[in-house]
Amino acid sequence: MAHVNIIGTGNMGQAIASVATKGGNTVELFSRADAQTPLTGDVVVLALPYPALADVIAERSEQLVGKTIVDITNPVNFETFDSLTVPADSSATAELTKALPNSSVVKAFNTNFAGTLASGINGERPTTVLIAGDDADAKDRVSQIVTDAGLSAIDAGAESRARELESIGFLQITLAAAEKIQWTGGFNVVA
Amino acid sequence: MAHVNIIGTGNMGQAIASVATKGGNTVELFSRADAQTPLTGDVVVLALPYPALADVIAERSEQLVGKTIVDITNPVNFETFDSLTVPADSSATAELTKALPNSSVVKAFNTNFAGTLASGINGERPTTVLIAGDDADAKDRVSQIVTDAGLSAIDAGAESRARELESIGFLQITLAAAEKIQWTGGFNVVA
Repeated sequence: MAHVNIIGTGNMGQAIASVATKGGNTVELFSRADAQTPLTGDVVVLALPYPALADVIAERSEQLVGKTIVDITNPVNFETFDSLTVPADSSATAELTKALPNSSVVKAFNTNFAGTLASGINGERPTTVLIAGDDADAKDRVSQIVTDAGLSAIDAGAESRARELESIGFLQITLAAAEKIQWTGGFNVVA
Repeated sequence: MAHVNIIGTGNMGQAIASVATKGGNTVELFSRADAQTPLTGDVVVLALPYPALADVIAERSEQLVGKTIVDITNPVNFETFDSLTVPADSSATAELTKALPNSSVVKAFNTNFAGTLASGINGERPTTVLIAGDDADAKDRVSQIVTDAGLSAIDAGAESRARELESIGFLQITLAAAEKIQWTGGFNVVA
């Protein structure tokens, strides 16, 4: 079992908290106003919009050293809704890793809508969480939290695959915003 | 109903032929050796690996004028298996469109494994074909072929979204190659 800190109390933060709690982990939810409260978890989920990560890095990078950091962001350019705000050959996860070189950054949950995390089901199947990162132990830790709650986890590969995961997250948001899919559905994986 | 020409007789070409036939369209399959046989279809599917498109463009660009061209490629760098061979801010579809400015290029089928096209089913649901392109009529034509065969079609947006579709196709190939998913499954969409 892990002690999980989640920064961000929005619908994603709450849904990930419910996943971690369901699996028997201890969970602390932090709002942005809790910037002075120390993090004691071994896993820290940054359940914030991508532009908010800069503040967390500025405030907490020392506290994040040695921990598993979960990046759930989709850095969508909401002005154009036609691209991401990170360089085309990079990803939010790659940028975060550069900013936190002494933490183990894992991409996860960005291809899942909150409703499918909270329910654990997407269509007829368990919700599948795709996980990418360069630290196998950190990925295992996140995978365990997911599967202990009855969801499916797939190791999607190295940190470089975060780029593809962000493409999926971005496309999925555009499809839901255009009402071509529901916010209660989205991509699932037939393994 | 459409008259569909498919260039490429591999498993994807055959699977797409079966989809188009099931819906009542007429289908002609062409191998690369048929380069001298004229194309008479209103829809031409290029069911070839991405590097082979250059030859088709060289041999047939005049014949492709005014037609709906379906690009199914995933331009994976099979040497590194870690990126695509097109520029990071581009896509195979964007490159093909530049080469065929007087055709209507549509991205489709690249996020589907052949088995799920032939069977029409992925898991418990109809296989979903994601379609992107800038010509709405051309997308409708391809969508009709898909839905007439009992599969689902989702308009994934403008040609710029082909980049995200190629990310999905690429990730899916890496997952199947690593035996994390089956070649009979893959991504499906809960709409």
